Amino acid sequence: MSEYDVTSLVGGSVGRVEKRFATLAEPPHTLRLECGREIGPVTLAYETWGELSPEGDNCVLVCHALTGDSHAAGYYTSEDQKPGWWDIMIGPGKPIDTDRYFVVCSNVLGSCMGSTGPASIKPGTDEFWGMDFPIVTIGDMVEAQRLLLDNLGVKRLLSVVGGSVGGMQVLEWSVRYPERVASAIPLATTCEHSALAIAFNEVARQAIMADPAWNEGAYHGGPFPDYGLAVARMVGHVTYLSDEAMRRKFGRNLQDRCSLTYRFEPEFQVESYLRHQGRKFTERFDANTFLYLTKAADYFSLAQAWGGGSLTRAFSRAACRYLVASFTSDWLYPTYQSRAMVQAMKKNGLQVSFCEITADLGHDAFLLPSARLNSLITGFLTDTLARVREGGDAL
Amino acid sequence: MSEYDVTSLVGGSVGRVEKRFATLAEPPHTLRLECGREIGPVTLAYETWGELSPEGDNCVLVCHALTGDSHAAGYYTSEDQKPGWWDIMIGPGKPIDTDRYFVVCSNVLGSCMGSTGPASIKPGTDEFWGMDFPIVTIGDMVEAQRLLLDNLGVKRLLSVVGGSVGGMQVLEWSVRYPERVASAIPLATTCEHSALAIAFNEVARQAIMADPAWNEGAYHGGPFPDYGLAVARMVGHVTYLSDEAMRRKFGRNLQDRCSLTYRFEPEFQVESYLRHQGRKFTERFDANTFLYLTKAADYFSLAQAWGGGSLTRAFSRAACRYLVASFTSDWLYPTYQSRAMVQAMKKNGLQVSFCEITADLGHDAFLLPSARLNSLITGFLTDTLARVREGGDAL
Repeated sequence: MSEYDVTSLVGGSVGRVEKRFATLAEPPHTLRLECGREIGPVTLAYETWGELSPEGDNCVLVCHALTGDSHAAGYYTSEDQKPGWWDIMIGPGKPIDTDRYFVVCSNVLGSCMGSTGPASIKPGTDEFWGMDFPIVTIGDMVEAQRLLLDNLGVKRLLSVVGGSVGGMQVLEWSVRYPERVASAIPLATTCEHSALAIAFNEVARQAIMADPAWNEGAYHGGPFPDYGLAVARMVGHVTYLSDEAMRRKFGRNLQDRCSLTYRFEPEFQVESYLRHQGRKFTERFDANTFLYLTKAADYFSLAQAWGGGSLTRAFSRAACRYLVASFTSDWLYPTYQSRAMVQAMKKNGLQVSFCEITADLGHDAFLLPSARLNSLITGFLTDTLARVREGGDAL
Repeated sequence: MSEYDVTSLVGGSVGRVEKRFATLAEPPHTLRLECGREIGPVTLAYETWGELSPEGDNCVLVCHALTGDSHAAGYYTSEDQKPGWWDIMIGPGKPIDTDRYFVVCSNVLGSCMGSTGPASIKPGTDEFWGMDFPIVTIGDMVEAQRLLLDNLGVKRLLSVVGGSVGGMQVLEWSVRYPERVASAIPLATTCEHSALAIAFNEVARQAIMADPAWNEGAYHGGPFPDYGLAVARMVGHVTYLSDEAMRRKFGRNLQDRCSLTYRFEPEFQVESYLRHQGRKFTERFDANTFLYLTKAADYFSLAQAWGGGSLTRAFSRAACRYLVASFTSDWLYPTYQSRAMVQAMKKNGLQVSFCEITADLGHDAFLLPSARLNSLITGFLTDTLARVREGGDAL
């Protein structure tokens, strides 16, 4: 029984939005990264919706997943075929209600969708960073977001919300800056990658590095490692779906044919779909960036970074209320990993709502229309704002 | 609770064994393949253990999985570090008891371990078949095995046994030649690939085809597509393990280090392991062959081939007793797929023993020591031989 009843989804569109760019960590300042290196200035691409309240108490930070961007809602131009990636969640009357909240989404540090990363020009040169770019962590991404919020005059977040690698940023925010976070909504995420998740990322990275065009990352100007990047994306794509979802969507259906060809062209629909996804990805994403962002996800361990190996100790720093959601068919970050974080939160007396949502759509379920998820987030944010305005403290 | 109590495993070694080669489908004959093309002569590499009884009623055919070979038990030379791939199962006093049964294992048609396939020389030329080799099916593999058994004077199989893609051959045998099969033991297998299984195979194939060295399959003499083949193997390897097994084996342990390096060298143990597996595979396996064998597995559909889309109708042809086993943590061919075949067998009044074995080792569990599996196979084969000798019919 799926809880994906979308008939009750409501709300309007935010309409047009503009991508903006903030220059942060300008000289004499720098951004000191966890690897020990310092970079600066740093650009973050970001978008905002709604207005910051005079009290500054209504900001919701939205964190995107691995290959996402700042374009979480609305349209850049009237010709856009599709709105931002979480348009079902963000807008007037929607769960992240732009009539009530000031919503911010920035492209993460290290990405290639407008923020500083391996695909940017190295300051003081006319060359791309490429593999000279320092390895960035989820913590570094949060650090850069913090600088952006300082810039925007946001002192404290009503909530920070995101799924998958976005959820890692949510967890990191809540532990790194407890005084600046009233509530946190980590979705379909984990406090650290399992060996299985690292394995898939490593296979994807190896696919890129095996492409001779990758050329140790120095492919700018030459041919691009599109073959490797496409295979990497295919690996990722399989992990985002589920056995059930793929059976329902593709089964063993053949593409444009009614019998087997006994050739190596794509003939099962799932083959065509994967090749298409791989190809499409190369048009919008940078291969080195894929290496860096998967590495950041693999490195993330809340217990290691903040608890000396103990997740409970890591969450002892936190001071916000949490809404945690996992999805039954998500085998990349299975529910048991969400339960582990919920348990560690509860051991610290933190207020946690946890919901395992029935969905056969796999890891990607958090991005798809869900009346259940919408209702959970609507209620949680409304309640958090009421509590903040009542007592100045959400707990 | 794992059922992998190996303390009760018993039996001796078959000792030395020799790989032999049978030349089949010699002119004026040919082997007509399901794709419509004809090939011949065809070589199958094979090994045997034990003796065929005077009644010819004790032959057990062992079918290997995707990249396996005929070397299922024993040692080629006294220097061999490791015995054949199923040595725990085959030998005097072992479940497939070489004191009682005549055991045959052949390398499948289309493989590169001694049998005719894309890595063989095309008859009448001095060139490798490469991608000119016809696409072969599981049915074609069984056809070639049937020719081999004719050659060896085996008219009827006491049992045909195998796991994974070997299990597909087992199922095909039981439906294609019901009069020649007294019993069948399909392990960790499926009657057809799910979209997920096809997806993983397609990603692996794309990894090979994306390697410029692959050169449309014409890489003999030039550099070999080892990078692509290694990535393909890594994809496969991840699917053979399970989340639990990988957590237990690797977790987030680092290789030779106690802290992160902030570099792209392999540092998590699971990364080193995968790279090692990928590299090792390129030393023993041919890239085109990997394409052909995964395709054969994807094409396999018992329902389509023998039941006009109905699995129940397909099994209406069968006349043997079955022992079906699946493994709890096998997410490549999950238990529900074994249940579907068991249900279809039972609807036809066939005698079926089904066991879902508790194991956290993933798909590869069928290859690993299991007291439970050993005891099931021992009992099933003993019982089958007794029935065959009592009444001439195992059912």
